[in-house]
Amino acid sequence: MSGSRRGRPTGPTGSVIGRALQLLDAFGPERRQLTLSEIARRAGVPLSTAHRLINDLGKWGAVERGEDGLYRIGLRLWEIGSLAPRGPGLREAALPFLEDLSQITRENAQLAVREGAELVFIERIAGSGAVPVLTRVGGRFALTATGVGLVLLAHAPVDVQEEVLGSPVDRHTAKTVTDPVRLRRMLADVRKNGFSVSDRQVTMDALSVGAPIRDRHGEVVAAVSLVVRHGSTTPQALARLVLTSGRAISRALNAPA
Amino acid sequence: MSGSRRGRPTGPTGSVIGRALQLLDAFGPERRQLTLSEIARRAGVPLSTAHRLINDLGKWGAVERGEDGLYRIGLRLWEIGSLAPRGPGLREAALPFLEDLSQITRENAQLAVREGAELVFIERIAGSGAVPVLTRVGGRFALTATGVGLVLLAHAPVDVQEEVLGSPVDRHTAKTVTDPVRLRRMLADVRKNGFSVSDRQVTMDALSVGAPIRDRHGEVVAAVSLVVRHGSTTPQALARLVLTSGRAISRALNAPA
Repeated sequence: MSGSRRGRPTGPTGSVIGRALQLLDAFGPERRQLTLSEIARRAGVPLSTAHRLINDLGKWGAVERGEDGLYRIGLRLWEIGSLAPRGPGLREAALPFLEDLSQITRENAQLAVREGAELVFIERIAGSGAVPVLTRVGGRFALTATGVGLVLLAHAPVDVQEEVLGSPVDRHTAKTVTDPVRLRRMLADVRKNGFSVSDRQVTMDALSVGAPIRDRHGEVVAAVSLVVRHGSTTPQALARLVLTSGRAISRALNAPA
Repeated sequence: MSGSRRGRPTGPTGSVIGRALQLLDAFGPERRQLTLSEIARRAGVPLSTAHRLINDLGKWGAVERGEDGLYRIGLRLWEIGSLAPRGPGLREAALPFLEDLSQITRENAQLAVREGAELVFIERIAGSGAVPVLTRVGGRFALTATGVGLVLLAHAPVDVQEEVLGSPVDRHTAKTVTDPVRLRRMLADVRKNGFSVSDRQVTMDALSVGAPIRDRHGEVVAAVSLVVRHGSTTPQALARLVLTSGRAISRALNAPA
């Protein structure tokens, strides 16, 4: 997708539309209800400007103002967002296979896509015996630590890889690989083996194995993973399952509608 | 939500932001990939204006342009939309109860909210023996025919009821109630009984029973329903199940976080 952005928004794009959309960035998983002044402060615009822009956003339904005076993301935005092919479209094609993975293993099956230099989780199905994980559907994560992230990074354009490997890498546990040289070797292994292994790199009790999902041109457009309790099985045993699912989802995605 | 809109957008709101957001309305479930000229034509703006506005939307990630030149709704919009309390927030609280309903009955459990004079489906769980239904998650429907719709309309503000009952009512089957006088009586029954019954009003093989979901002030904020094959059970038997779920979801929704 040549029109996609890299990473999180960092400042005004200059246009009035850019400034308005930037107000929406003030909202987050821990900030679902905001006052107008909180929105203005987070977006770095004067209160009067924020007031005018938020009114325009509200007319269309991008935000809603409750009787308590707080602003929330509007239902209309969710409706339009549910048309994004890389989000719900992908999720719909992948869901039966994620459910199979999760039921067979009683563990977490995850689905993610790359957005710039980060990943976005599209779905997570938690099996009945699943190990706790740090992910949230619609949430972002670094590309360097998780099973899905290593797959997406291994198949990212060179400039994205250089950007990620040239920046400090987040450490989650004592096992997190943060050395660029070792990371490069891991990414080469992912491309050679066809799957990724994240061994206690995110939490000390989790092992994750990821596999690519490809479009009809063979490009990697998403990744699927299983996250299981460390010590419960081998990466090789998981890899067979996850690779099979990755191929099945690729096939479902590329089937004529 | 005093800031929410009534019905679908009907024209430019006058502001540049309104015009930009209106471009997004060109996309729909059957129109997920559009050329720039299709977007311009559907939004009723000149091509040059559409080009400028879509570039600003693209910079933030609201739209993405593929290598095929077609525009799609961007992942960023889905990410932000997933923060809407009336969408995924409600879904998360309701999901375990919808799954219970669907597993117990092997039929469809549905969740919807009112948006102006229509409803929006937030979730649908199809049981293993479920009757086919016309709904799509994120899709809209009239308030007059479905189990969830009748609940939402029965508890809507008077001006919304008058708007709906004063307009022609969509007919889906020979059983669809379109007479305003009969509809008023049905809505009174919903308020009196606490649940709605839609008997073959949407398709000739489906019976649906809906119940309200209330916020902490007792206001109806959503509706839950079961949709089963007509003749397989009685509305009264379904009503007990659906009412119980409606209360359980209300309680989960209003529990302190």
